[in-house]
Amino acid sequence: MPIYSAPARDTRFVVNEVLDLASYAGLPGFESATPDMIDTVINEAGKFCSEVLAPLNQPGDEHGCTRHEDGSVTTPPGFKEAFEQFREAGWGTISAPEEFGGQGMPHVLGFVIEEFISSANQAFGMYPGLTNGAVSALLAKGSPEQQAKYVPKMIANEWLGTMNLTEPQCGTDLGLIRTKAEPQADGSYAITGTKIFISAGEHDLTDQIVHLVLAKTPGAPDSTKGISLFVVPKLLVNDDGSLGDRNGVSCGSIEHKMGIHANSTCVLNYDGAKGWLVGEENKGLAAMFIMMNAARLGVGIQGFSQAEAAYQNAVAYALDRRQGRALTGPSEPEEKADPIIVHPDVRRMLMDGKAFTEGFRALALWGALLVDLSHKAETEEERAEADLLLGLMTPVIKGYGTDKGFETAVNMQQVFGGHGYIKEWGMEQFVRDARITQIYEGTNGIQAMDLCGRKLAQNGGAAVQAFFKLVGEEASAAKGDETLGPIAERLEKALNEQQAATMWFMQNAMQNPNNLGAGAHHYMHIMGIVTLGLMWLRMARVAQEKLAEGVEDKAFYEAKLVTARYYAERFMPDAGALRRKLEAGSEAVMALGEEAFSTAA
Amino acid sequence: MPIYSAPARDTRFVVNEVLDLASYAGLPGFESATPDMIDTVINEAGKFCSEVLAPLNQPGDEHGCTRHEDGSVTTPPGFKEAFEQFREAGWGTISAPEEFGGQGMPHVLGFVIEEFISSANQAFGMYPGLTNGAVSALLAKGSPEQQAKYVPKMIANEWLGTMNLTEPQCGTDLGLIRTKAEPQADGSYAITGTKIFISAGEHDLTDQIVHLVLAKTPGAPDSTKGISLFVVPKLLVNDDGSLGDRNGVSCGSIEHKMGIHANSTCVLNYDGAKGWLVGEENKGLAAMFIMMNAARLGVGIQGFSQAEAAYQNAVAYALDRRQGRALTGPSEPEEKADPIIVHPDVRRMLMDGKAFTEGFRALALWGALLVDLSHKAETEEERAEADLLLGLMTPVIKGYGTDKGFETAVNMQQVFGGHGYIKEWGMEQFVRDARITQIYEGTNGIQAMDLCGRKLAQNGGAAVQAFFKLVGEEASAAKGDETLGPIAERLEKALNEQQAATMWFMQNAMQNPNNLGAGAHHYMHIMGIVTLGLMWLRMARVAQEKLAEGVEDKAFYEAKLVTARYYAERFMPDAGALRRKLEAGSEAVMALGEEAFSTAA
Repeated sequence: MPIYSAPARDTRFVVNEVLDLASYAGLPGFESATPDMIDTVINEAGKFCSEVLAPLNQPGDEHGCTRHEDGSVTTPPGFKEAFEQFREAGWGTISAPEEFGGQGMPHVLGFVIEEFISSANQAFGMYPGLTNGAVSALLAKGSPEQQAKYVPKMIANEWLGTMNLTEPQCGTDLGLIRTKAEPQADGSYAITGTKIFISAGEHDLTDQIVHLVLAKTPGAPDSTKGISLFVVPKLLVNDDGSLGDRNGVSCGSIEHKMGIHANSTCVLNYDGAKGWLVGEENKGLAAMFIMMNAARLGVGIQGFSQAEAAYQNAVAYALDRRQGRALTGPSEPEEKADPIIVHPDVRRMLMDGKAFTEGFRALALWGALLVDLSHKAETEEERAEADLLLGLMTPVIKGYGTDKGFETAVNMQQVFGGHGYIKEWGMEQFVRDARITQIYEGTNGIQAMDLCGRKLAQNGGAAVQAFFKLVGEEASAAKGDETLGPIAERLEKALNEQQAATMWFMQNAMQNPNNLGAGAHHYMHIMGIVTLGLMWLRMARVAQEKLAEGVEDKAFYEAKLVTARYYAERFMPDAGALRRKLEAGSEAVMALGEEAFSTAA
Repeated sequence: MPIYSAPARDTRFVVNEVLDLASYAGLPGFESATPDMIDTVINEAGKFCSEVLAPLNQPGDEHGCTRHEDGSVTTPPGFKEAFEQFREAGWGTISAPEEFGGQGMPHVLGFVIEEFISSANQAFGMYPGLTNGAVSALLAKGSPEQQAKYVPKMIANEWLGTMNLTEPQCGTDLGLIRTKAEPQADGSYAITGTKIFISAGEHDLTDQIVHLVLAKTPGAPDSTKGISLFVVPKLLVNDDGSLGDRNGVSCGSIEHKMGIHANSTCVLNYDGAKGWLVGEENKGLAAMFIMMNAARLGVGIQGFSQAEAAYQNAVAYALDRRQGRALTGPSEPEEKADPIIVHPDVRRMLMDGKAFTEGFRALALWGALLVDLSHKAETEEERAEADLLLGLMTPVIKGYGTDKGFETAVNMQQVFGGHGYIKEWGMEQFVRDARITQIYEGTNGIQAMDLCGRKLAQNGGAAVQAFFKLVGEEASAAKGDETLGPIAERLEKALNEQQAATMWFMQNAMQNPNNLGAGAHHYMHIMGIVTLGLMWLRMARVAQEKLAEGVEDKAFYEAKLVTARYYAERFMPDAGALRRKLEAGSEAVMALGEEAFSTAA
């Protein structure tokens, strides 16, 4: 059975020392996020995750969800009880707005909890996780009546939510959706169509499930400009808020997937189900993006969360398993063999895991802080700046985070040798579960196009220029320092690669947009490398300061400096290679006729 | 249901035009490998694989193997019948020596068939595949009596073979094995112990299974110098060759694995089983390596075979699935959306798949030719040279081939978006099956150490110097050419990176062997990039010649030139980044104390 314990020490480091949350105490909600309160949240949420959720992860994978003949779905044994505990403890309400029953604390804390939950049990975490996205859309676009009706119950996790976008003939290209919404005399709409891949589409954790559904009204334009968003509850809600009749939506089947077996991925059939328009007609795409952006940050955390869980297990295995001898001579001569952590190639994999997970934790929580600042910063200018950066970071957090999260899970499985391939050890589940994060809520190819095709160009490139300035200034400030200098210099070099790649896009994408498309994925990775590099420089700076102050747990801060150096040496060189690939352009990518891809004949 | 058809055209290209097998017609066994014969083999083996084996792949994965209470194991429905067809057609005998009933044809053809079988059904291919390794060991080290008794039946696939190395407490470090071999009065040994992860350890495809087992005789040195190899048949063989009593070996359980479910991976319990020493006492490791080297080439092919199968399906899906529009304007305006192959990022993934699979096919079959030449070349010098290169290439074919094979399978799954995650489409099985190839027959970390710690230094670096000369000369000869020049220049650049990395090892590994260990995996990848680069240069040269001659299927050869360029532009830049990581050395890799890897507390 795999282990999991919440990375409490590292989380405190990022929240209290790197982000310095206390310095934002003047902003609404931050005042209550004191170091003591943060400790309590970390410890209590961590305990729940390691003691309740983690033990259900492997059995949940084996058991999966069960659809019954009446269309109802039961989650794996223990999930319902665990969800009750989750709900009662209010873990889902931490950063939700107070006027709807939330605790109004910073999103930073919400993201901390999301990481822990997802590391312990990704399939479980998806049930409340998707609700967050649905709530965001209702808060942004729903009418006051809709908000009053749905949001408090959803925030309290008495009801859960879903996002219904995909149909058999359309995933990425939402202009192709066929689900129809016919206006009814009472102001509602009759929703008819088939939605697929609906995570948590049907289950037994709550009586009510609130579906947010994209559909087309009669005569709507035949493109993404003709999509509207509807709220379609599984059970109709009476005027007094009590639950009424069953609505015309049902689970047709559960998909058989590579992983996340404990989350019910449903085909949902809408058969004249009663729905209500959320926001304006034909403006569904904008509402969907609000839901989606929240979900994308969550998916980035999921990918990384599997890397973290896999990393913890790989470390434990590498310390326990004995094979061979250190190249420099036996480390434990009295034993028949040394623990495999003495082998440089095992170390390399573990250091890769450490450098990615710790670096990405800093990035994810910085992203959370940007969410908070985009809503709560004092001035309009600060809010706009945070929003700009957040928009730029979202595809990087989702795309780079899940690509590297999967890669890390695979490498941590590799540490186990043959045992990593055996189900009992749990490593292969981390790999299978992590794999979906590169795919859903927009494949990573879509993230790359969001980054390069939209975010780079927005406001005349204001976001990426702000990012360049940020990285450039921090790197420049650290360059003279003996310890930070080598890290800063490599970061500056990687930044130069990104700037050159950006320039190349500007010079070559206008004449041929395929030049952008063929390099977008590489660009996303370059930016991921630079961004995590910035995080490592920040962490190294804080570690250096703490060591100068004379802290007690010196080893923790010294390890940060070593890992920052490792990151600079072993992650950053890829930026140059990626730039060269990108600058090769689209010619060879696009040159072949379709028949040239066939291997037979 | 996923598709598969044997890549007949490309295989003919590599065998007849790139390797020019006809030019070796003077060597034994090659004279019968005429282009007509090769065509027949490709077509017939291809047909069997696509029509019989491929349809069993997905059902086999779902059904798995079943162990019964008496310890017997049944393979999935259809496997036994398919194996009968395989055996009757003699596909396992193609390149086996004629004096033991084989057809004595070049290994090149054997490898062609191995690829097709493994692409169609990796788990099936492992049953006869492991037998090849066992046969190699018996041919090299067995007594004439042992060879006569076992080899003809094994080559005819009337009996199948296994390799028994791993035990619960030891995988990589075979010095730790505990299985005992007690000498008996009749010259046999009583074998007692537990072996795990034994592929095809028990099944119903043949009555007899011939286990090759590593064990320790009484008083043997407590290291790899105390290991002996034994042949332990499941059923004792009577003097007349008929099958007798059951031997004391039984299947204790079948492992639950991430993939290759249709191959029975067994725990085998030896309880005083009768075994016979193969070769000399305490010299088992050398015999094991013969078995292992054959198996490692086979595993390299397996990894690549899953990439090929996944690639074929990704191409079909990308041509069929319609989402969005080409960035340069609708490619099929009359349809609601374009096929996704118009999107540069989808193309990038497909071109990555094409460049890797075609490049690696050329490498694998060149490797097979080296196997042939190491035995059959006219002069001792030529045989030694082929053997030297083969030894150098083996860890690259296994390690780089399976790392990239897995990566390719993952990327091909990505082309499917959400559907790639659904079992029904079969893509996730390719990923799960490919994953084992990075692990078994020596993890890829072990391959990297075999390459850097043993092969680079052997005979004063003769092998790698011969490789540098080969690549250098071919690149140099092509540099002035308008078409080949850019490819050759990039290859030369990658070669320079490898040479610099080699030099760095020489200068830094002596003083601290961790510098070698920390860079070995990177080095293996640099060498993989250079080697595939050499293959692409060769293929481009042949394509250029054919186009100059004025061939009919121009498109095929033009596609080779485009793909060679793509490979040069998109694979080769990594060599420089990998060198920089390698040259960072082991300091940051090894600096941390063990406690620094813990994330809790």
